[in-house]
Amino acid sequence: MKRIALLGATGSIGASTIEVVCSYPEEFKIVSFSFYRNLEKGKQLIKRLLPQFVAVATEKEALALSKEFPNVQFGFGLSGLVTAATMSEVTMVLTAVSGSIGLVPTLEAIKAHKEIALANKETLVMGGDLVMQAAKEHKVRILPVDSEHSAIFQCLQGNPRENVSELLITASGGSFRDYSRAELKNVGVKEALCHPNWSMGKKITIDSATMMNKGLEVIEAHWLFQMEYDKIKVILHKESLIHSMIVFKDGAYLAQLGASDMREPIQYALTYPKRVEIKQATPFDLTTIEALHFEKMSFERFPLLKVAFEAGRAGGTLPSVMNAANEVAVEAFLNQKIRYLSIEKYVQEAMMKHQNHPIPSLETLLEVDRQTRVMVNEWIKKGLFE
Amino acid sequence: MKRIALLGATGSIGASTIEVVCSYPEEFKIVSFSFYRNLEKGKQLIKRLLPQFVAVATEKEALALSKEFPNVQFGFGLSGLVTAATMSEVTMVLTAVSGSIGLVPTLEAIKAHKEIALANKETLVMGGDLVMQAAKEHKVRILPVDSEHSAIFQCLQGNPRENVSELLITASGGSFRDYSRAELKNVGVKEALCHPNWSMGKKITIDSATMMNKGLEVIEAHWLFQMEYDKIKVILHKESLIHSMIVFKDGAYLAQLGASDMREPIQYALTYPKRVEIKQATPFDLTTIEALHFEKMSFERFPLLKVAFEAGRAGGTLPSVMNAANEVAVEAFLNQKIRYLSIEKYVQEAMMKHQNHPIPSLETLLEVDRQTRVMVNEWIKKGLFE
Repeated sequence: MKRIALLGATGSIGASTIEVVCSYPEEFKIVSFSFYRNLEKGKQLIKRLLPQFVAVATEKEALALSKEFPNVQFGFGLSGLVTAATMSEVTMVLTAVSGSIGLVPTLEAIKAHKEIALANKETLVMGGDLVMQAAKEHKVRILPVDSEHSAIFQCLQGNPRENVSELLITASGGSFRDYSRAELKNVGVKEALCHPNWSMGKKITIDSATMMNKGLEVIEAHWLFQMEYDKIKVILHKESLIHSMIVFKDGAYLAQLGASDMREPIQYALTYPKRVEIKQATPFDLTTIEALHFEKMSFERFPLLKVAFEAGRAGGTLPSVMNAANEVAVEAFLNQKIRYLSIEKYVQEAMMKHQNHPIPSLETLLEVDRQTRVMVNEWIKKGLFE
Repeated sequence: MKRIALLGATGSIGASTIEVVCSYPEEFKIVSFSFYRNLEKGKQLIKRLLPQFVAVATEKEALALSKEFPNVQFGFGLSGLVTAATMSEVTMVLTAVSGSIGLVPTLEAIKAHKEIALANKETLVMGGDLVMQAAKEHKVRILPVDSEHSAIFQCLQGNPRENVSELLITASGGSFRDYSRAELKNVGVKEALCHPNWSMGKKITIDSATMMNKGLEVIEAHWLFQMEYDKIKVILHKESLIHSMIVFKDGAYLAQLGASDMREPIQYALTYPKRVEIKQATPFDLTTIEALHFEKMSFERFPLLKVAFEAGRAGGTLPSVMNAANEVAVEAFLNQKIRYLSIEKYVQEAMMKHQNHPIPSLETLLEVDRQTRVMVNEWIKKGLFE
């Protein structure tokens, strides 16, 4: 039986993970989990999953919940997350929190020899070098949960790495895929949040529109699959049914495709290398689909993708700066404090101002993340680009 | 170095194989080959490839060629093919002859422990049981060369068989894919030979139009991948860029795609499990393709596909009857002796008249093949369905 720590239980990945876990109760058990904002949903999950340990946001919450659920242990903040991820009963950690908070508990879980199922992009975007080194040192497997990385992982199975010449990540194009640069000037939050293919969290929906989401995925793919940036490509595929592909040296492609159902990559990370039926899945039938389309990606149209490649290639602290600046700028856009096209400007400005540390420690990474947030928030307050 | 016997050197698979072999002269050498009708091309190949042994159609030809090429040994007929395939210098046999003549030399090559690269459909359609048993017994690997089977083989790499729930073979639909049954009544040879996607031999082009080609591929796939017929599906995919797919238990699909270049599956069979660049290949770029389409297959529109599933499921001698009747009928259609829709009728009639032998010997298979040809030829002479 796999005994799982689910970091980020109340988000959409968390919800799909719980569905998978509960559909195979003889195979999986959630031993610990964390949640952040959604207290009501968190309480429901405690009742439903009967975990040993739950990590919450604040000490006050932890104390109140201890009284309500005397059979459950509670922790809070970063140390709560680390406890949830490293307790001895846990065999696998699924990191589905959002933001840079995912990095430390994932690293600690690796050091405690827990298998990792990774849905938190920042873990590898910020700490790719540290995380992959720790995984190697402690012989811990990192299984991707993102549908793109899971697709590549699935395609790579059984194929010697030297046979592979390219990774090809597909991108839906996001809410504004049919807009020109000029048409982006006055777009608002409401339109930006209308993703053509999925309903996801707000942050990732904006990142899809700016293509920063693909940029983060490119950096993740670089670390997960140890692939040079020159060999990672992004193409537009508006149906999002091919989740990603690999290209072999002889020109053959392998593509992983299927329904847009996050349970598939989550379940594969949990059952790997086995595959089992997804309970109550809607069957995927290619013949009901009108057509699959592909288009070249344009760095001119989506400059943040180019920026992400640059940050990835530079390495060091630069990806952390990019990520932190982007997070702050997207939040400000969502709160209607900056315009859509200013997101790019703040990200680029933060990166330009940054003096890169080529081989940063964990502490340096976290400090750079913190400083960048403070700086970009100040810029926004001053209306630097508005 | 792989020392290859190329059975069927002057056909289109033969030509692509020679291109692959000659592009990696330090890796591959053609030690022996066979050709049947095309004497001029055969002679050119002798000069170019400098083989040790060549199998030709008749004793007379063999004698004449011996005088012209005193440093080459010649054989003829079936025994010539068997010698080419089993000589001690050979390590791999690529069977690219067309028709039932491929069965015996392939079986003999397996018994002589040669690795097999298989492009001859009849070998498995007729003798699947015998061939796979012999391969198991002699621990010989059979590598597919057909693009569909190579695609499935590529998708299956590294995936435990119990994870796989279906094989999905793609079909272009052939020359008449946009015709209704009624419109097929008066179609002629010239239109039938206009394949929308490729230029291939005449027989296979007609088989593509009638969907018998997919039927033969279904039976081959059954044997190659030891997959039940219920788990083999065919879908229409008119662009023919996805060469075939597999479906996993969790609903995920893997698809192999790429240019329509037969050197890819041939080279993979030769270099397996390694992959190397295809020399002077046209790069495959999905973004230059308008769209990929998929449609349900219809047994009503393509009854010969249904017939092939029935023959495959029945096993024994029935697939040999189907194959022989089809070969004779297609030949007659090409010679304008029967109408297009009569091909189906002769095949079905031959199968209906046949008393199936469930576990036939090689001799029985060959005798049934011979008898069926005689019988269908007589029916055609009499104009049974015209």
